[in-house]
Amino acid sequence: MSTASTRVPQQERSRATRARLLEATVDCLVEYGWSGTTTTVVAARAGVSRGAQLHHYPTRAALVTAAVAHLADRRAAELRTEAEALPAGPQRLDRVVDLLGVAFTGPLFVAALELWVAARTDAELRRALVPLEARVGREMHRLTVALLGVDERRPGVREAVQATLDLLRGLGVANLLNDDSARRTALLHTWKRQLAALLTPDAGPPERATPGPERDRQ
Amino acid sequence: MSTASTRVPQQERSRATRARLLEATVDCLVEYGWSGTTTTVVAARAGVSRGAQLHHYPTRAALVTAAVAHLADRRAAELRTEAEALPAGPQRLDRVVDLLGVAFTGPLFVAALELWVAARTDAELRRALVPLEARVGREMHRLTVALLGVDERRPGVREAVQATLDLLRGLGVANLLNDDSARRTALLHTWKRQLAALLTPDAGPPERATPGPERDRQ
Repeated sequence: MSTASTRVPQQERSRATRARLLEATVDCLVEYGWSGTTTTVVAARAGVSRGAQLHHYPTRAALVTAAVAHLADRRAAELRTEAEALPAGPQRLDRVVDLLGVAFTGPLFVAALELWVAARTDAELRRALVPLEARVGREMHRLTVALLGVDERRPGVREAVQATLDLLRGLGVANLLNDDSARRTALLHTWKRQLAALLTPDAGPPERATPGPERDRQ
Repeated sequence: MSTASTRVPQQERSRATRARLLEATVDCLVEYGWSGTTTTVVAARAGVSRGAQLHHYPTRAALVTAAVAHLADRRAAELRTEAEALPAGPQRLDRVVDLLGVAFTGPLFVAALELWVAARTDAELRRALVPLEARVGREMHRLTVALLGVDERRPGVREAVQATLDLLRGLGVANLLNDDSARRTALLHTWKRQLAALLTPDAGPPERATPGPERDRQ
């Protein structure tokens, strides 16, 4: 075998090993939380040797940060693909908000929240996460602007997109211990009308809400 | 000493011991997170014997749940007192949103978030917290309605209050690893105008946003 043909499979094997480790990390964060997501547990779940795991990700902070970055990139790509199938016109906004609502209650949100909270009291994790949090936040904002097909240079658009993402983050937290989907659906139904009004300068005031859900929470 | 006069100081001592334990618990959750908040650490910080701690709160779940309930009651009372000093009229809404913004970035929010996230993967803590989360959520909603001085029977009011609290929760999470106050202030400035429009049926459409802050995040 030539050197070149040995190297390519080797690179592919490395890439596959890293992908298995990163997927296993997110699975472990969702299933066991930060405290249960040790490098040993992740390596076992991925079916990867301790040596290979340490070679690719020498620290727990490096492993979990890479895992969230990897999943964030994958989810962004998936959202773009799903959005290509969406209709133009007023229905598009509703469907984009629905897609984002799913993203903010899914495994990536839960895994990231585990890390954000743990990083508050873990200096090494915090150093690794702060730049990632900023990057993921910027990309999520840009992606939302693109999915909605709005022009951020127009007054109010940037703030409306920000408020939408902050609201979705709050709804994601409200969904941690209970299935909050009925309340979330009703609340987002109202929010879609407000958002449409904010994004469309010529529209009237936001539509009054329909009768609401029965549950509230902090 | 009569039995009655012995009993009263005993009850007072017990109450003081419990209060010290609960305050120390919240301090520990803020400083060390859930994983560092063991009953031993809390007893030492409160200056209370292990025996007394176990007498009052036999399990870690009982201790932390009581601590968040205690602090939630105290913060609600403080918010009511602060709100009494607020002006009536349109400025009132702005000041109420500011007070809530402070509450959702303060020690109670951080301590509660530590527990909500930990309870996701800890069955005993989850059983203790789920009823508390529901109660605190209902009371926070009721308190917000009272502070704003609005009538929830009017269409849209309930949903607008809910969206405000969900938005504030999202902003609280965005503040975990960084001081997000500049972005939060700008975003809440815009939200106050939207909220005023939602709560005042005869008002026009929400005011267009002023030029926004530079940072976004997921």
